[in-house]
Amino acid sequence: MLTKYLALYKKSLYESVVPFWLEHSLDRECGGTFSCLDRDGTVYDTKKYVWLVGRSVWMFSRLYNECGRQPAYLDAARLGVEFLEKYATDEKGRYYFSLTRQGEPYFFQRKPFSAVFAMLAYLEYARASGQQRYKQKAIDLFWEITQWIENPELLGRPTLAGASKTSGLANVMVLASMAVELAKVDRDERYLDFMRKAIEGCRLHYDAQRRILMENVALDGSNLSDWPEGRFFNPGHSIEVAWFMLHVLEFVEDENARRMAYDVIEGSLEYGWDRDYGGLYYFMDVENRPTLQLESDMKLWWPHTEALYALVLAYTRTQEPRWLNWLEKVHDYTFKHFVDSEYGDWFGYCDRRGNLTHSCKGGNYKGFFHVPRALLFCIQAIESYQASHPKDK
Amino acid sequence: MLTKYLALYKKSLYESVVPFWLEHSLDRECGGTFSCLDRDGTVYDTKKYVWLVGRSVWMFSRLYNECGRQPAYLDAARLGVEFLEKYATDEKGRYYFSLTRQGEPYFFQRKPFSAVFAMLAYLEYARASGQQRYKQKAIDLFWEITQWIENPELLGRPTLAGASKTSGLANVMVLASMAVELAKVDRDERYLDFMRKAIEGCRLHYDAQRRILMENVALDGSNLSDWPEGRFFNPGHSIEVAWFMLHVLEFVEDENARRMAYDVIEGSLEYGWDRDYGGLYYFMDVENRPTLQLESDMKLWWPHTEALYALVLAYTRTQEPRWLNWLEKVHDYTFKHFVDSEYGDWFGYCDRRGNLTHSCKGGNYKGFFHVPRALLFCIQAIESYQASHPKDK
Repeated sequence: MLTKYLALYKKSLYESVVPFWLEHSLDRECGGTFSCLDRDGTVYDTKKYVWLVGRSVWMFSRLYNECGRQPAYLDAARLGVEFLEKYATDEKGRYYFSLTRQGEPYFFQRKPFSAVFAMLAYLEYARASGQQRYKQKAIDLFWEITQWIENPELLGRPTLAGASKTSGLANVMVLASMAVELAKVDRDERYLDFMRKAIEGCRLHYDAQRRILMENVALDGSNLSDWPEGRFFNPGHSIEVAWFMLHVLEFVEDENARRMAYDVIEGSLEYGWDRDYGGLYYFMDVENRPTLQLESDMKLWWPHTEALYALVLAYTRTQEPRWLNWLEKVHDYTFKHFVDSEYGDWFGYCDRRGNLTHSCKGGNYKGFFHVPRALLFCIQAIESYQASHPKDK
Repeated sequence: MLTKYLALYKKSLYESVVPFWLEHSLDRECGGTFSCLDRDGTVYDTKKYVWLVGRSVWMFSRLYNECGRQPAYLDAARLGVEFLEKYATDEKGRYYFSLTRQGEPYFFQRKPFSAVFAMLAYLEYARASGQQRYKQKAIDLFWEITQWIENPELLGRPTLAGASKTSGLANVMVLASMAVELAKVDRDERYLDFMRKAIEGCRLHYDAQRRILMENVALDGSNLSDWPEGRFFNPGHSIEVAWFMLHVLEFVEDENARRMAYDVIEGSLEYGWDRDYGGLYYFMDVENRPTLQLESDMKLWWPHTEALYALVLAYTRTQEPRWLNWLEKVHDYTFKHFVDSEYGDWFGYCDRRGNLTHSCKGGNYKGFFHVPRALLFCIQAIESYQASHPKDK
C-alpha cells in the first residue's frame, strides 16, 4: 500500500530537498548555515538563526548517521556545529535567537528553543563525528534547559502576577524529544522520568471531547477560557506531539497513552482540516472565536509534514485502513501545494485557499528540518514495515 | 467634490463606529476598556491591552473636546484613564503591554509604545476633564519616553554587538506626534526641536527614487540591504508618517519637507497598491524578495484609513485633482472590504484577494483608534475646507 509513497518520498528527499540545501545553505566564507533562501536558493537574509542552524546540524548528522555516511552530510553538519559553539551563546551560556553572518549576536529571544535545537544538534553530531565531548555538551545543556523551562526568569522573562501558571505544549514536546534522544545513548533513569512526565503532560493537554491536544492549560486551576490562549489549538503541533508520544512509548509502557496518541492524530486531522478548501489550518480557536494571530487561517507546510509522518507511523503500527485514507488526502494536498518541481525543495506558505503567499524555501522559522525529517522518518518507517510485512507492498 | 465623502464619514463615525465601541468596549465592572470584540461586540479576550486602552482614552477625549462635549465620551475616557493610572505601570514607571481584566500585569513588551499611547491619553484627557495633573503627568511621561527610545536597555532590551544602530520609522513618528500635541498646550521650545528632528528623521528614511519612507535605516553607516529589515517597506506607516509631517509643518516652516510629504503620500500609494487585487499591501520588500512576516500580503484596515485621511488632507491643502482620483480608489476599496453594515464598525483583516480572514472588530492591535481618528480628521478637514471654499462642495 505504501510503495508509491516510498518512491515519492525518496525522490523528494534525495533528489530535491537535500541537494537544494547542500547547494545553497552552507556559508563557506563565514561558517554556519543560511536559512533564508528564496525560491532559487538565493540568500535573502544573511543572518544566522540559531533554531535553524541547530536543526540543520541535527538533520545533516542524522542523515549521515542513518543514510550511508556521506562525507558531504558530515561536512555540512560540522560547518553548523562549529559556528554554534563559537558564536551562539552569551556570557551566561544562554543561546541567542539570531546572529549576523559573521556571528555577532543580533537578537535574544526570552525562550529556551534556540538551546533545545543546539542540544539536539550536539548530540546527533557526537554520534556522527565520534567526538564524545559533543555528547557531554548535549547532556549538560539538557539539564540547563530543564532549569530555563522551569524558571523563565533565568532567560530574562519576568513572572507577572496576572499571568497564570500554565503548561505550554511546546515545552512538553521539547522535553520529551530531548529525553528520547538522550535515552538512546545515555543510561540515566531520569530520562525515563522525563518521558513519563511528558505523557502526563499530554494527558493534561488532552481535550477528550475533541480528541486534540490544547496548546495551553492552567496548572493553578485558573479558568483560561476567557482568553484566546486558553482556547488555542495548533493542529500541526498537536499531531507532532502525538507522534513524539508514540516514540516515547517505545521506552515507556502505557497502553492508555498509546490509544490517546492515535486519537489525537485522528482528532486533530478531523478538527483541523479545512472542509471548504482542504489543508490543515495553522491556528484555531476551539470556540470558533477570532484568534489574535493574523496568520491563523493560512496553510503552512509543516503541519502537513507532521501529519504525513504521523499517518505513516500510525498505519505501519496498526495496519488500520483509516490511516491510509487520511494519508492519501494529506499527501495529495501537500504535494500539490508545497512541492516546487522547478527549483527543488518545498514552499512553506499558502493562504487559506491554497494560493502561495511567499516564494521562499526557508526563513527565520523554516529551514532544513521539517521536510527532510518527515521524509526520512516516513522512508524509514515504510522500509522497516515492508521488511517485516513483505506481502503488504 | 468632497460632500459625498463627508456624509459617509459622518454617518460611519456617529452612527456606526462610536455607538459600537460605547456599547461594547466599556468594562463597568472592573474598569478600563476591552478591545477584543468579535463581530457583534462580544468580548473574546477579557485582557486589557495598554496600547488600546490608551488609544481609546485619547479618542474619546478628542471626540469630547471637539465634537460637542458629550458626557458619554468623557465618561468612557475616564473609565480608561483611571484604569491606566491604577494598573498600567511597573515599579519603575514602565508601562506593561497587557493586563488581566482586573488589572494584574500579564505581559511586558520591551518597547516604548504602551507609554506613548498612555501619554497621549493623559494629555487629551487633561483637556477634556480640566484636570491639570494629567497634563503634567503627560509632560513628565514624554520626557521619560524620550529616554526609553534613546536607550532601550532601560526597557530590558539588551544592546547586542551585531545589531546595527538604526532609526526606526515608528520612533520618528511617535516622537513627532507627541511633540505636536504638546506644542499645542505647553510653551516649551524643545517640542519644536523634536519636530525639526522628526523632519530630519523623515529625510533620513526617504527613498527618493521610490518616493517612500523606508521602515529602518542605519545610523552607523552599516549596509542593511542584506537583511529584510533594511529592505522593509510598510505602506500604511509611510503614509501615516507623511500626514503627521504635514501636521508638524504647521509648527515648523520647511517647504522642501512639505514637498517630500506629498511625494511620500503619492509614492507610497503607487508603490504599495496591489495592481492585481486592489488595496494596500501590509508589508513589502523593496527588492521584491520574501518577507519574514507571514501576514505581508494581507490587506489591513489601518493602512487604508491612514490613506483616506492623507488624501483628504492633501486635496484640501492643494486642490490638486490627483488626490481626488486616489481618494476615490482608496475609499471604494475600503468601504467595500472593511465596513460592516450589519453589526456596525469596521472589520480589520482580509487576505490579499480581499477575503475576510477575521470576524473581529478589535484585538490586541485594533481598537477604538484608527477608524474613528481617520473619520474625525477627514470630517474636520473637509468641513474646514468647505467653510473657506464655499464653491467647492
